[in-house]
Amino acid sequence: MNAPHRTHARVRYGETDQMGVVYHANYIVYFELGRTEFMRAHDVHYASMEQLGMRLAVVEVGVRYLRGARYDEDLAIETRLTEASGVRVRFEYRVLRSGPTPDAPEELLAEGFTVLGCVNADGRPTRIQQPYKDRIIELVGR
Amino acid sequence: MNAPHRTHARVRYGETDQMGVVYHANYIVYFELGRTEFMRAHDVHYASMEQLGMRLAVVEVGVRYLRGARYDEDLAIETRLTEASGVRVRFEYRVLRSGPTPDAPEELLAEGFTVLGCVNADGRPTRIQQPYKDRIIELVGR
Amino acid sequence: MNAPHRTHARVRYGETDQMGVVYHANYIVYFELGRTEFMRAHDVHYASMEQLGMRLAVVEVGVRYLRGARYDEDLAIETRLTEASGVRVRFEYRVLRSGPTPDAPEELLAEGFTVLGCVNADGRPTRIQQPYKDRIIELVGR
Amino acid sequence: MNAPHRTHARVRYGETDQMGVVYHANYIVYFELGRTEFMRAHDVHYASMEQLGMRLAVVEVGVRYLRGARYDEDLAIETRLTEASGVRVRFEYRVLRSGPTPDAPEELLAEGFTVLGCVNADGRPTRIQQPYKDRIIELVGR
Repeated sequence: MNAPHRTHARVRYGETDQMGVVYHANYIVYFELGRTEFMRAHDVHYASMEQLGMRLAVVEVGVRYLRGARYDEDLAIETRLTEASGVRVRFEYRVLRSGPTPDAPEELLAEGFTVLGCVNADGRPTRIQQPYKDRIIELVGR
Repeated sequence: MNAPHRTHARVRYGETDQMGVVYHANYIVYFELGRTEFMRAHDVHYASMEQLGMRLAVVEVGVRYLRGARYDEDLAIETRLTEASGVRVRFEYRVLRSGPTPDAPEELLAEGFTVLGCVNADGRPTRIQQPYKDRIIELVGR
Repeated sequence: MNAPHRTHARVRYGETDQMGVVYHANYIVYFELGRTEFMRAHDVHYASMEQLGMRLAVVEVGVRYLRGARYDEDLAIETRLTEASGVRVRFEYRVLRSGPTPDAPEELLAEGFTVLGCVNADGRPTRIQQPYKDRIIELVGR
Repeated sequence: MNAPHRTHARVRYGETDQMGVVYHANYIVYFELGRTEFMRAHDVHYASMEQLGMRLAVVEVGVRYLRGARYDEDLAIETRLTEASGVRVRFEYRVLRSGPTPDAPEELLAEGFTVLGCVNADGRPTRIQQPYKDRIIELVGR
């Protein structure tokens, strides 16, 4: 298995809540950042797919929370594409806190998944068109 | 001058930040709630305007913050339509904290304004169509 | 089994995304509104629990999305407390779209759950103090 | 006058609304990103100020909107510190869209300002402590 794709996000002030950590719904946004950058890194440009009338709508999401991220921390988001068919794709994610020094170990903050289904501009299920379909299936496990 | 239109919103957990009060950008959302309910109360249904291809895009916003709203507080949003032409409208707002008892005085938390311009589905400036135009102009000062 | 607790929320403009429906992370916010109002309706005041140093932190969340909610729609949020111990509670939710007329059937838009764990002000696991613990356990299935 | 500090942000999906452009309240978040990175670039670490009990609370904000930013666009945020005293600071911002090619001109999307006042952990006005005060005043116009 290859190393997962990684991207980074810095915690914004408005993403925290009065508990002093990132509000839990915002991890879903981090997952999306990971997914967007995974696809960009592998030359699948999501904005172009939308212009062709295909949208990947989230049909299921799950998150397990272990530790809270704090304001201004640099988060690493690991993304894997674990399943894909002509109509659905599944991504898995891990959100880690970078250590205070380059060699300090990272801490796992949350992990989860999203399942997305392809829909047209009216929101009806549709098949992922070529060349996107083959390209996406080829990325499973990467 | 008539009493301003009033609507209520309860502070959501995710609207707070680590300072323990509502994150400042969220007052812009409260202003929009006030504007939406002002229009509904006066029979100008914004979702219907959008279906006819008219959108009221915010072109300017200003807010002065006096005190911070806290989680679960019941906020009153006062909205006035203070100016309107065939292409632009200006709303003014006050956000108040309801007192702990029915007869305790309210505290002013923030006040501000938004100027909106009418645009079509492509984002180009356009005139507010009838009967919306006359209806909106008639509401100035109410 | 009793009828679940119900509360309502109207879709805000900023909660939609360019797909024209509510952005998926916002359903987690709707779940929280349901949970807050469930607890208020049963006289468990969450803001008071926090003042005593107990916080219910989300440790797991899951959502299945069926249909997209649209701007200005009136959503019904059904909330059930399905499990509770001295340290954890599980809530289940359904988000429904009210029909266009009072007797039209509702449509299920999304369903899901959250598991929450009690933590102290430092984020460390702690037991739910009395009288909250007994009161919450008593609400399971209501 | 020196060139303003610049930072970048890519438009997130959830930041758009059903008009197909970034929801107007999110520009306030972009301003904050610009301010945070301005301070970091000039060695004023805001998270450290908060740990010392000083918070910079927004007391006024204004935005003029010219064009809408779209999903996945790379935005440049220009930030200037234009006024500072021992208790208040004013920042001015411009949000620009990077052109489609490296030499295409940028388009101005929005501009605005925030005024921030120093408050302590209880939200009461307080003076900016040294060495932060002198350091911030020295940055005016940079």
